[in-house]
Amino acid sequence: MNKLLLKNIGNLAGAYPVAPGRLCGEAMNRVPELKDAWLAIEGERISGFGTMADTPAEDDYGQVIDVCHGWVFPAFCDSHTHLVYAGSREGEFRDKIAGLSYEEIARRGGGILNSADLLAETSEDELYASAARRLRQCARGGTGAIEIKSGYGLTVDGELKMLRVIRRLKKDFPMMEIRSTFLGAHAVGRAYAGRQGEYVDMLISEMLPAVAEEGLADFVDVFCDEGFFTVEETARILEAASRYGIRPKIHANELAVSGGVQVGIAHGALSVDHLERIGDEEISALRESATMPTMLPGASFFLGIPYGKGRQVIDAGLPLALASDYNPGSSPSGSMRFVSSLGCFKMKLTPEESLNAVTVNGAAAMGIEDMGAIFPGAYGSVFLTDPLPSLAYLQYAYTEPLIRRVILKGTSI
Amino acid sequence: MNKLLLKNIGNLAGAYPVAPGRLCGEAMNRVPELKDAWLAIEGERISGFGTMADTPAEDDYGQVIDVCHGWVFPAFCDSHTHLVYAGSREGEFRDKIAGLSYEEIARRGGGILNSADLLAETSEDELYASAARRLRQCARGGTGAIEIKSGYGLTVDGELKMLRVIRRLKKDFPMMEIRSTFLGAHAVGRAYAGRQGEYVDMLISEMLPAVAEEGLADFVDVFCDEGFFTVEETARILEAASRYGIRPKIHANELAVSGGVQVGIAHGALSVDHLERIGDEEISALRESATMPTMLPGASFFLGIPYGKGRQVIDAGLPLALASDYNPGSSPSGSMRFVSSLGCFKMKLTPEESLNAVTVNGAAAMGIEDMGAIFPGAYGSVFLTDPLPSLAYLQYAYTEPLIRRVILKGTSI
Repeated sequence: MNKLLLKNIGNLAGAYPVAPGRLCGEAMNRVPELKDAWLAIEGERISGFGTMADTPAEDDYGQVIDVCHGWVFPAFCDSHTHLVYAGSREGEFRDKIAGLSYEEIARRGGGILNSADLLAETSEDELYASAARRLRQCARGGTGAIEIKSGYGLTVDGELKMLRVIRRLKKDFPMMEIRSTFLGAHAVGRAYAGRQGEYVDMLISEMLPAVAEEGLADFVDVFCDEGFFTVEETARILEAASRYGIRPKIHANELAVSGGVQVGIAHGALSVDHLERIGDEEISALRESATMPTMLPGASFFLGIPYGKGRQVIDAGLPLALASDYNPGSSPSGSMRFVSSLGCFKMKLTPEESLNAVTVNGAAAMGIEDMGAIFPGAYGSVFLTDPLPSLAYLQYAYTEPLIRRVILKGTSI
Repeated sequence: MNKLLLKNIGNLAGAYPVAPGRLCGEAMNRVPELKDAWLAIEGERISGFGTMADTPAEDDYGQVIDVCHGWVFPAFCDSHTHLVYAGSREGEFRDKIAGLSYEEIARRGGGILNSADLLAETSEDELYASAARRLRQCARGGTGAIEIKSGYGLTVDGELKMLRVIRRLKKDFPMMEIRSTFLGAHAVGRAYAGRQGEYVDMLISEMLPAVAEEGLADFVDVFCDEGFFTVEETARILEAASRYGIRPKIHANELAVSGGVQVGIAHGALSVDHLERIGDEEISALRESATMPTMLPGASFFLGIPYGKGRQVIDAGLPLALASDYNPGSSPSGSMRFVSSLGCFKMKLTPEESLNAVTVNGAAAMGIEDMGAIFPGAYGSVFLTDPLPSLAYLQYAYTEPLIRRVILKGTSI
């Protein structure tokens, strides 16, 4: 078993004696720091840490990395991406520059359906190759756990193709924790245009059983929003998925106060995501749930739509996760460091809150218990930076290449 | 003399038969592309380019780089930075998160005066070391020409110290085109608190002659804005500088419609910068001038203040440059690629307009004639990217590490 020692760590951020679980409200405004520290990883997992005065004997370790007073952080946990897709969509990006709205672009047959057309023409191998390239970039950017959705298939074959690509990514990137989400209800497939109810019937009677039979989905997602799926349709899909033991993580309240938060909570959703538009009712409902409110500031940044009221959510005593929403149409970036900067710059989170939102709470939004923080038994997934004047510098210096090295489950990548 | 050949260029962007000069209005919406190209650099300068069918004999070249179908772009020209500074200001960044405005932070003694205090305690060598580190990062990000301002000294000694650091950067980074700007009128130094007129007198009678005697400044700058220097004070400073043959580039209309644009134009300013707040009068004045309107979207992004109306400026037939404003208080980033993305996402420039704003027009804003585009005789300063599906991808995929290699004046860095 590989034994790795990181020594001369200027500051070990996010180190806890035991798993912190999800962080809510005021607890989000704290990141424990251990100055002049060491960290040991045995095999895939953290075996211990402490201050340099008590550094263990180096001879016991197969590999020793001198961090030279740089900082060590837990790897980012990105709980919402659409990383598997065919083609980029910088053509539509011009339409957005010209001032067309997301809804208009969708109405013109662009948006998700455009991606679905491209995906239908793309082989599983090509799809895998481009997704693997993006996943590798995410890992190099410090991401150690990631959720990836289907939803550009919108046919039985297309959805299965996407989910099989995700299964292959899981196999080929064992150093990353990957979770797959079946998002057949991302939009109505073209063959069902104008027949949304029938599409939902087909999703429940054909797609879902096929997905479940191959064990391809950890979670199920529905785009429950104005112009997409209704609360009633969402409830039907989530109930059907629950019969296969598949928990929901849903898209809600991006375009309107859709009722999506409430239907997600009612069905035990691990997270409700987007939430650019929420009010007191949604906050009350979340307070009585174990569902993680998740916001996607990268999409707000790219589309120029309002940012989620993350400040309000935390002030209400709730937890908050931030994720990248990496996708070709509305968030062409998987950089969790940039997401964390947006949390500070645009949502007025403190640097500590924003870091917790992309680590501890991101892990919780995927139901992953052994990542998101540094504690004995957690996966040894961390990133190493240059020496920093303070934690806030990570978000402040938002384009500076501060990340020197990434170690995922004990392996340098 | 070093002879370098770049072959197998997928697309050579921004290649002209002769220097394009500054680009105005509709002309900004075009970037010439040459597919399957080669580019030759002899010594520091471009000696030719063409299509692969006519590639010159490789034996004539000391070095041949196979670009493997990647794209080649002219290096970025960043016409407005405050790259020399002491300490970072992520502490104040917390104040900004807490909702304090730029004006409030300045009133609390933070902002520029805070940086000036730190600078006074910092030796020229330390100042040089941190600035050189930042400059190297800018170069690695694709920047080949850069303007750097003083203005955190605010005493004769402090300003001279900063300008000497810039002189040393010019000497040690000969592959970059560096321009130095004396910005003694960035704020009123602490010793002159409440005596702004006397500070201006001292600037004119003491600072400026000392700066001119050592030949330390290519340009002079004044922060002509509400709460900073008045139009009359600006005029006095610019007149005094003109007696030493030093042309202005000024800060105007960030905080208010200050009259700064007009006073800059009246004194033959090479550029008027910031311009978050301008109206028809400013646009009319600019139309009859050779002054480059320059906007700094990184500051708008970081501070959350309105973006300049770049769209309106171009639609009025004017040229536009975009620069990073790299500084610790309001724009802690020197990434011109990100600036160009902001031009598209936030100012609704087309990808071509935004690229021209950070290359051709950035060079013009510094009075540099042999950079900003690829033409015979221009400096051989370019950056190489991965193969791109289209030019727009450079701005669209805003966190993807697309830049593979940077060559400045014929030297790989």
